[in-house]
Amino acid sequence: MRVDHRSLREFTSRCLLAVGVSTKDATVVADVLVAADLRGVDSHGVARLRRYVDGVRDGAIRPDARTTVLAETAATVALDAGNGLGQPASCTAVDMAIAKGVETGVGMATVRRSNHFGIAGYYALRAASRGLFAIVGTNASPQVAPTNGAAPMFGTNPLAVAFPTDADRPFVFDAATSVVPRGRLERLHREGGDMRAGWAVDPNGESTTDIPRVVDGLKARAGYALLPLGGLGESHGGHKGYGLATVVELFCGPLAGARWGRHVYGAEGAGLGHFFLCGQVAALTTVADFQAEANQMFDELRASPKARGQDRVLIAGEREHETEQQRLATGIPLRPAVVTDLARIADQCGVVPLGPMPMSRSGLGAHGENTDEGD
Amino acid sequence: MRVDHRSLREFTSRCLLAVGVSTKDATVVADVLVAADLRGVDSHGVARLRRYVDGVRDGAIRPDARTTVLAETAATVALDAGNGLGQPASCTAVDMAIAKGVETGVGMATVRRSNHFGIAGYYALRAASRGLFAIVGTNASPQVAPTNGAAPMFGTNPLAVAFPTDADRPFVFDAATSVVPRGRLERLHREGGDMRAGWAVDPNGESTTDIPRVVDGLKARAGYALLPLGGLGESHGGHKGYGLATVVELFCGPLAGARWGRHVYGAEGAGLGHFFLCGQVAALTTVADFQAEANQMFDELRASPKARGQDRVLIAGEREHETEQQRLATGIPLRPAVVTDLARIADQCGVVPLGPMPMSRSGLGAHGENTDEGD
Repeated sequence: MRVDHRSLREFTSRCLLAVGVSTKDATVVADVLVAADLRGVDSHGVARLRRYVDGVRDGAIRPDARTTVLAETAATVALDAGNGLGQPASCTAVDMAIAKGVETGVGMATVRRSNHFGIAGYYALRAASRGLFAIVGTNASPQVAPTNGAAPMFGTNPLAVAFPTDADRPFVFDAATSVVPRGRLERLHREGGDMRAGWAVDPNGESTTDIPRVVDGLKARAGYALLPLGGLGESHGGHKGYGLATVVELFCGPLAGARWGRHVYGAEGAGLGHFFLCGQVAALTTVADFQAEANQMFDELRASPKARGQDRVLIAGEREHETEQQRLATGIPLRPAVVTDLARIADQCGVVPLGPMPMSRSGLGAHGENTDEGD
Repeated sequence: MRVDHRSLREFTSRCLLAVGVSTKDATVVADVLVAADLRGVDSHGVARLRRYVDGVRDGAIRPDARTTVLAETAATVALDAGNGLGQPASCTAVDMAIAKGVETGVGMATVRRSNHFGIAGYYALRAASRGLFAIVGTNASPQVAPTNGAAPMFGTNPLAVAFPTDADRPFVFDAATSVVPRGRLERLHREGGDMRAGWAVDPNGESTTDIPRVVDGLKARAGYALLPLGGLGESHGGHKGYGLATVVELFCGPLAGARWGRHVYGAEGAGLGHFFLCGQVAALTTVADFQAEANQMFDELRASPKARGQDRVLIAGEREHETEQQRLATGIPLRPAVVTDLARIADQCGVVPLGPMPMSRSGLGAHGENTDEGD
């Protein structure tokens, strides 16, 4: 089914409202989830709504949590999300880091006792849309083995970096520090694709391409693990990916005062941590010079010689931006399993179910409820 | 030949003094170079002295340059190295970022019109030794192809991150954003080892393991290129390594107001850029909590299940720390080619040549000049 992004945002927000989340927080969470769907990061979009709704209903996520300030300096702030939803706390955090960046040149915020915050790129782009560059990271449930290890010790620990290189199209890098995210394996498993050697290890720490076992083994925490960027061992730099994952874990765990490694998602809640670092371009150079040089760099990359069989050199975030432009115009395609799950959530929450986007009005911003066209 | 680190530092410093570098700057450069040799990063140690001495003699590096402040806010400073040596400018920069970090919570410095600054980890560790965490990066001469590309567009753009996890043994991640650095290929070429598929591409952008061609092709800028971390294409995350390289280039080039990509090492000098971001642990959590949690994390990683055939899970920087302890005690092994080159530099500069470390006094800190033992 293909749905209009505004309908999807409204639907998501209503479901969260129904389980006791405030209007303000529900709006924020819906915006972050739908931003992922718009950018083609479907694993981090409304496909996650089930976990949020269930988390609130079973008490693991507190819908009434308030984000509190634990410590503050001119350029830094340490926040406690009170086991609430990750998105509202993270928006508060990045907005404070932005304000401090505007005031002092660079600002930083950390968050502890938080939950899944969606795509890291959302917050980096939020800073870029206000003219700041940003570095954002989060830890996550353990799925990645250290180099020479045979057990999941770290999350996929994504890192996002954005720069305000262009008002309409800022640069954004947003990537897990593992070779592939678990969502990619699940999609291949579902769609019948093959996984590659060097993506994951079995409980002996040996590379495996047995996709059903890896997918089930990760879910069951049965000793299977993803590999860090760079793959198995050190021959292709796996220790670098592992090092990057450790860096993200140190920022988000010990430095933020949050849980880390295997201690996340314990009895007292997820206890995740995030960090947000925002700086002013104008503090270091002129904005005009920065943008001119950055865009010339991108142009030179695009125009550079291509590998045989390739016709394009992309810039980080470019593909996601193109997907977003397309999905804003023609709607967001949702997988049947996600549509079914959203219908169940609607039923459980007493919310009007989501309808497909009317194909004839797709370019006109129609909401699309109560029609049944689309895929 | 095995030399004492103090002798090597003194020798290096004297050579630089002889070509017109000030005592203060020569001491700084010697300390950074020998730090690399101590940590086992031989490609970034005194093996580079030739380039520095020649650079100063032929006018590409100005020995009398002063680092000037271009712009300053409470938490940031933009510096101009005036085409001088990278190390003195970088020490000034990281020290200012540290001072700003202590004052406001987090501080940042950028440097433009600079030269090779040695190992990025040196500056990150300098911040950690004063109790701050740090992120450091630099751009470099173009050697790395973008994903789907067939030409070197970025340097190996290393990124270093340190945390003051322990007074004697801080955490430090320091890695090129390419799969392997060029120095690794040169060593394999010299020693007769093999390179692996996915490390480098030929001028068609296809993976190659023809080590003499790659080494020569990189040196001659003949279209050969290293691959970003993650390797060829996107299947193993090569686009993530390329994205990280782009991030480092944006910080060090457009944001620092320095040259970037193919424009470094032009007629007016290298024009390299660096950035240094330093933050206070105490601004965000208590130092005791931070250190206890970080060290527990490291202990859990070390104790985690090992892959079959492996007996150790390491922490980033651990191997380099062990090499440093060993080389402090037993001296730094220099390759014959480096020894020969240093002897030539000594001759050209009119400096007393470097001698091997006296084996019998190796643990006692003897200087070792004018002896001829050792390997």
